[in-house]
Amino acid sequence: MILSNDRAILSLHMSKGEITRQQILDHAVALASRVGLGGMTIGSLADNLNLSKSGLYAHFQSKEALQIRTLEAGAEKFVDTVVRPALKSPRGEPRLKALFNNWSRWPEESSLQGGCLFVQVAAEFDDLPGPVRDRLVQLQRDWFDILINAARTAVSEGHFRADVDAEQFAYELYGVMLMYHHSARLLGDPKAEERAKAAFDALLKSRRANP
Amino acid sequence: MILSNDRAILSLHMSKGEITRQQILDHAVALASRVGLGGMTIGSLADNLNLSKSGLYAHFQSKEALQIRTLEAGAEKFVDTVVRPALKSPRGEPRLKALFNNWSRWPEESSLQGGCLFVQVAAEFDDLPGPVRDRLVQLQRDWFDILINAARTAVSEGHFRADVDAEQFAYELYGVMLMYHHSARLLGDPKAEERAKAAFDALLKSRRANP
Repeated sequence: MILSNDRAILSLHMSKGEITRQQILDHAVALASRVGLGGMTIGSLADNLNLSKSGLYAHFQSKEALQIRTLEAGAEKFVDTVVRPALKSPRGEPRLKALFNNWSRWPEESSLQGGCLFVQVAAEFDDLPGPVRDRLVQLQRDWFDILINAARTAVSEGHFRADVDAEQFAYELYGVMLMYHHSARLLGDPKAEERAKAAFDALLKSRRANP
Repeated sequence: MILSNDRAILSLHMSKGEITRQQILDHAVALASRVGLGGMTIGSLADNLNLSKSGLYAHFQSKEALQIRTLEAGAEKFVDTVVRPALKSPRGEPRLKALFNNWSRWPEESSLQGGCLFVQVAAEFDDLPGPVRDRLVQLQRDWFDILINAARTAVSEGHFRADVDAEQFAYELYGVMLMYHHSARLLGDPKAEERAKAAFDALLKSRRANP
């Protein structure tokens, strides 16, 4: 409810054009999480939102521009639901735990019916060179850097052993999350979440200064 | 070279129709590894192979049938390059290592320019209910069962501890391989393979009876 009020207050400061643009992007992020960026046509998006195609083009000029802004809007949601709330947790292992918990819940928190937007589009764009892929890679690297820095802090706080390779830790952590998506969404494994948590716990244990 | 000869000899026993069908599927598997099953149109496939669209329809009747046969042809390649050769390794941990090594190399061995076919199509079909998704899930579960059984054998051979959860091991192993694909193909990390091997070694170490 507070969130709705915040959004209502925020809306007062936004022009009609800005509100529409934000609504389009909210819808685009949710749609792309299901059908990918390629499957999201300007026509279907316009239909869903009761906008004309030309109205939608006025906002984004091209499909490519819409795809890039959709990724950026997804990244903003990700920062708001995963990264920012985790900063309230103490540095080191507690913050890593908060990042993991928020990360595993972010598709649900952000009403992404298709699961994580970035997992959805990763395989879609890995063989499609161009500005959309470049932006996606940049956003993924930014997130990777946050995980690496959080792991380094766990070392400097004395939670992890001094010889822990923070990049290797981030790599393995990412693997756990990719498998969680794969297992929950494609295979429909009812134990997917439980297994992801067990994998994360094992990962922390393997790096702890005092196991 | 031996493989080419084998294929030539094999061809002598195949009718012209069978050869064409196999050639179409070889091409379809490679194409789908890049653009997904949805991106693979009967028209583009016919163009690439210098066949008429009607000729291609004569082989597969529908796009859905072509998609399912492409997955099955991919699974046959996977068994030939990953599973069957690993059976030459001793049961338990040596066989798990062989499965991992073959798995990480299978896209290259099978000339799949887009990387693993199944990673490519997983996100594509996780939200598309129907016969293609059903077949994909079945094939993925079959492969998962092979990994689980190999881990169970590592327990019964005394390589892994008696309390090791074979399904959890398979889940974590799968995560390593998904991350390898993500890191090598999307992020272009030159250390992707090295990190995947380190993650696999750490995984084995965490389960060994005598670490």
